[in-house]
Amino acid sequence: MNLTKLLKPRSVAVVGASEKVGFGGDSCRNILDNVEDVSRIYFINPKRDEVLGHKCYPSIDAIPDTLDLLIICTPQNTVIPLLEEGAAKGVGGAVVYASGYGETGTGEGRNNEKELMEAAERLNIAVMGPNCAGFINFTDDIYSFAFLSEKRDRKGSVGIISQSGQLCLSMMDDPGMRFSYTISAGNAKCVRMEDYMEFLIEDENTKVVGLYIEGVKAPGQFVRALKRASELKKPVVILKAGRSEKGGAIAASHTGSLSGSDKAFDAVLNKFGAIRVDDLEELIAMTMLLSTLNCLPAKPTVAAMCLSGGETGICADVGSLYNIKYPDFAPETLEELRRQLPSYATPNNPLDMTASLSYDAELYANALRTVISDQNVGMVIIGYTLLNEIADPAIHYMYKGIEKVLSENLGKPIAMLPFAENTRNREYQEKLFKIGVPILPPPVYAFKLLGYLSKYVEYQTKERTLELMLPERTPEKFTALSEYSSKMLLKDFGVPVADSIIAKTTDEAVEYWKRVGGKLVMKIESADVLHKSDVGGVALNIEGEEGIRRAFDTVMTNVRSKRPDANINGILTAPMLKQGVEMIVGVSNDPQFGPMIMVGMGGVFVEVFKDVALYPAPLCKAEALEMLMSLKSFPLLKGARGNKVCDLDALCETIVAIGNFAVSHKDTLKELDINPLFVYAEGEGVGVADALIVLEQ
Amino acid sequence: MNLTKLLKPRSVAVVGASEKVGFGGDSCRNILDNVEDVSRIYFINPKRDEVLGHKCYPSIDAIPDTLDLLIICTPQNTVIPLLEEGAAKGVGGAVVYASGYGETGTGEGRNNEKELMEAAERLNIAVMGPNCAGFINFTDDIYSFAFLSEKRDRKGSVGIISQSGQLCLSMMDDPGMRFSYTISAGNAKCVRMEDYMEFLIEDENTKVVGLYIEGVKAPGQFVRALKRASELKKPVVILKAGRSEKGGAIAASHTGSLSGSDKAFDAVLNKFGAIRVDDLEELIAMTMLLSTLNCLPAKPTVAAMCLSGGETGICADVGSLYNIKYPDFAPETLEELRRQLPSYATPNNPLDMTASLSYDAELYANALRTVISDQNVGMVIIGYTLLNEIADPAIHYMYKGIEKVLSENLGKPIAMLPFAENTRNREYQEKLFKIGVPILPPPVYAFKLLGYLSKYVEYQTKERTLELMLPERTPEKFTALSEYSSKMLLKDFGVPVADSIIAKTTDEAVEYWKRVGGKLVMKIESADVLHKSDVGGVALNIEGEEGIRRAFDTVMTNVRSKRPDANINGILTAPMLKQGVEMIVGVSNDPQFGPMIMVGMGGVFVEVFKDVALYPAPLCKAEALEMLMSLKSFPLLKGARGNKVCDLDALCETIVAIGNFAVSHKDTLKELDINPLFVYAEGEGVGVADALIVLEQ
Repeated sequence: MNLTKLLKPRSVAVVGASEKVGFGGDSCRNILDNVEDVSRIYFINPKRDEVLGHKCYPSIDAIPDTLDLLIICTPQNTVIPLLEEGAAKGVGGAVVYASGYGETGTGEGRNNEKELMEAAERLNIAVMGPNCAGFINFTDDIYSFAFLSEKRDRKGSVGIISQSGQLCLSMMDDPGMRFSYTISAGNAKCVRMEDYMEFLIEDENTKVVGLYIEGVKAPGQFVRALKRASELKKPVVILKAGRSEKGGAIAASHTGSLSGSDKAFDAVLNKFGAIRVDDLEELIAMTMLLSTLNCLPAKPTVAAMCLSGGETGICADVGSLYNIKYPDFAPETLEELRRQLPSYATPNNPLDMTASLSYDAELYANALRTVISDQNVGMVIIGYTLLNEIADPAIHYMYKGIEKVLSENLGKPIAMLPFAENTRNREYQEKLFKIGVPILPPPVYAFKLLGYLSKYVEYQTKERTLELMLPERTPEKFTALSEYSSKMLLKDFGVPVADSIIAKTTDEAVEYWKRVGGKLVMKIESADVLHKSDVGGVALNIEGEEGIRRAFDTVMTNVRSKRPDANINGILTAPMLKQGVEMIVGVSNDPQFGPMIMVGMGGVFVEVFKDVALYPAPLCKAEALEMLMSLKSFPLLKGARGNKVCDLDALCETIVAIGNFAVSHKDTLKELDINPLFVYAEGEGVGVADALIVLEQ
Repeated sequence: MNLTKLLKPRSVAVVGASEKVGFGGDSCRNILDNVEDVSRIYFINPKRDEVLGHKCYPSIDAIPDTLDLLIICTPQNTVIPLLEEGAAKGVGGAVVYASGYGETGTGEGRNNEKELMEAAERLNIAVMGPNCAGFINFTDDIYSFAFLSEKRDRKGSVGIISQSGQLCLSMMDDPGMRFSYTISAGNAKCVRMEDYMEFLIEDENTKVVGLYIEGVKAPGQFVRALKRASELKKPVVILKAGRSEKGGAIAASHTGSLSGSDKAFDAVLNKFGAIRVDDLEELIAMTMLLSTLNCLPAKPTVAAMCLSGGETGICADVGSLYNIKYPDFAPETLEELRRQLPSYATPNNPLDMTASLSYDAELYANALRTVISDQNVGMVIIGYTLLNEIADPAIHYMYKGIEKVLSENLGKPIAMLPFAENTRNREYQEKLFKIGVPILPPPVYAFKLLGYLSKYVEYQTKERTLELMLPERTPEKFTALSEYSSKMLLKDFGVPVADSIIAKTTDEAVEYWKRVGGKLVMKIESADVLHKSDVGGVALNIEGEEGIRRAFDTVMTNVRSKRPDANINGILTAPMLKQGVEMIVGVSNDPQFGPMIMVGMGGVFVEVFKDVALYPAPLCKAEALEMLMSLKSFPLLKGARGNKVCDLDALCETIVAIGNFAVSHKDTLKELDINPLFVYAEGEGVGVADALIVLEQ
């Protein structure tokens, strides 16, 4: 959808212009207070000649200009006629503040919304809202916003889309935030959240995109947008309600978005390197961090420089909570620091510089340069406790030192870390912002954000399949395939399944054994019997002609007596797999984002520790390995506790193959379960012991 | 140590009174700016008749009054003579700002410190510092503080002790903090941190004690103080550096405290219900929360009331990250809320009230009363996004509603939750404070704090052994006991060890088998052979006379050939234990806090997942059960995955018995390891399969 006339209009008309408190008055005030060139801004109110000193027209039709954007401040029942009138003047975008639509939960509201959507489409107008707070385009000074905020320069490079007007206002109210756009999308039923995303990702004045969303309505478009952001290396930071069970219920009741699983949503963000945050403070601080830094760190390692032991300890401890990597300084750095710091200081990372250098810009710059130049260091965090009364001298010199080092273009970013909310010192926040140094929130938030940043930096360097296979239809009527059928389907996709037969008679089983030798496993083969062991349908470690005959008969007799109704295909006869490390690999099919691959270690790991990784298909071997490495039980695959090192290469290949199978069956697959998948020692591959596929057939 | 003359002096002399910037000038300014009655405050400076309009004396001796407290603003070399002079005038407390002591890390500094400590003891003066920023007693208006802060009413009920002057200042600078005392203890070599703790815990104007410490120097006193606080139900909130490996190294290098394990420190705080926080912001916000609330919740359950779906979702999601319990509302609450809220609202916990009630104090109070009266709700959190421009009307009505409900004394606390730093609205913070409603920091911090509060509330209701058995001496020269000796020692303390013998001959073994029957385990019995299996020293599942004879000979031959040096006592012969759930129970002996009991599930749980609980001995069954319940693997003991429900009662009794053993051997025990301890089904007890004790003998 083309949003140019909506978000970058050349001419604007405000319908319902007024001097009163309310949509009309506040929209007019916002424009007159903030916009320099009002020559192509038109106010409309049939009852007034002038509003706030600006000429007023009686109707849209009376305006002697073509129009791009209509800001509609009048009630719901006036909207469609106004759109029609506007269309005749060239209008291509409209903001509808009015409520009385889907958000009411009534039939009448839903009907109003439907009529609005139809009118918008018919008239080819990109309608923002309804029931929205509007937007501000800070780059071009376009104010179409229904609420007043403190007047202040907010021009910057964070583009915000919010499904909540209140949260949008909170972000605008933060004294450190600077925006390209803020968009409070309201019901987002005509122009959708995903349309705004695509616009901001392409917008050259937007360096970081921040979203508050309650759900995704157009998964395909959402994924395309994420992919494009990933290609452009433009960070997308997302706050989405619904991480917890209760949160999910609230988000669903609030927006009625078709709700896939929240874990699948997470997995999709992981694939495209989008950053998911947990609350509004994180959304604010993370977008501010990313938009302020002159450059991103080339590697996710941090050096912290503090002025006291207490602060240094906090950096070490809270950093470790969020797995921040503090590399050891290189020997030459240590030597240099020993020369620069007082004798009682111990150079280390995190570094307690003591307060002694903070009153001399030159000395401070030297120490900072030494630390930031260390080859192991990706970025520098400067601990910063500067109080109201005693602040000025120290921060002045620290600032001068930082400015000097940054001017030398060493290509590594710096951020400031206050240790409590009240030590932020807003005056210097402004100065530091101008040289590309953000001030982080206090440590628990700050190190969480640095954790997100580290993950983002690592993401940039990894191989990915930047695609997703969304289901095109919703399958119905599922069938569980038998183990044999399941395995044969997987085999076609390269999953290493041992040769096996369905023996219809004892002779066939015996003949098979004579051919392959060794010990066999014999299991009832029937799509009607899913829990084979429960009905005596499995015989293990069978060998010898007599043994095979006996096992065949026993299994048949057991199943026939316990499940006389079952349609039996025969006995699945296969070599007995040797025991390996037990993994579970599964596929679930998310209604929004399609097949999701699940991997975990068998037994207690999945069931008690919920130690599983989820990732959207398709995936490559590097992505499969990343899944495995994210498991807490991963050390067991790498030889912990005297285990052999497992054949990770074969395991990753198998996961990729399962992903390919899932993608090919995205419109028919319900679920797939390989449990267990034995993983053997390096070079010895994997073995599929059991498999179950549930498909629409 | 009696701190009355130091912290609650009736008369004060400032030595080195001055008008310049620095210790002397700032101390005088602090007093004159903040203290109403200066009639018994004496300034001393031989060069001045008056300082800042206050009369100046040439020497201590010249003061026509007895003195309690000496504030020494002059350099290190003047201190001891001044203390001597002061003692003659009755001085019992002194604050020493000067540096040049232990903190320099030099021999000279350490020597100066030693001389100061000796003088303080000889003269019976409680000396604060040296190298400290001093203290303020807000209750009695005693200012002995070396740095200036913004002038503001800070009188309240938080007592702070800080080993860092900078962090102490940061706390004082927080506009919401109100104190009984702030103490920046400096090197704390004369009066120790633990002395201040005891003072504040007994102080009736102190409702909450907050500590920033780098280590504990007097563990016995520290524990006594914690015990007393626990008995008085006075919360103690502690920020201690050293949670991480790097943090521990920094703390150790900074203070030189004898450093026990940080995990043992945590376990001690758990036992006494002290609250450990992760950074300065948490220390500030947690002490503010506890000191502001009119009452603590009777149970650790929360209801959240918000004005928008976005905020409600954040409460649900971030709450779940910190295991906040949001109980379902009772049916009558739901019914009532359905009447009170607009039709499109869905009553639920967390509750999205929508914004519709926030402009009517009466309606708001009704909804709040309905929620807070719910029998399942322990406390209420009110989501609060109030911006600068649009804030006033809503917060006014919300405030009125909250005030009304609180005036009805329903006995449950309320706290406000802003969603971003900038929506705190300081003016209302003051008003809300006065009615006992704290404003929390943004959600990630807020819910972490509510998690601490929940744990504290749960602690209050549980049975505890409020004691610790600190080692009185450091054992040397350890001996590893043989399995038999280890088991026999444990048996005396009630650990259920199966009857066994040390068979010296095959006949003895056979005779034993004839008596007990069943299958036996036979293991080499030698204190010299710790890894018995490695030398063929173990035979399992042995039965029958011949089997026993063969096993005896095999084990003996194996060990004699592989360990010809070993001193062999015979063959430990015991009934073969049936397999149970494998637990590991161990004891380590912390150099500061004595025996710590460790419990975990055997195998990967301890080694890969580090899933262990640590608790100081002695302990009762309720505490043992709490340890088990804190394990991630606890569901496996409760019957997860089709396991039998384990005999938790017997397991807890065994843990208590091991604790008793450890306490009795606190001065000689190095470590104890029972691995595995089999736990059987309910009613079937436990079995000690192997045990190792390392003791000084």
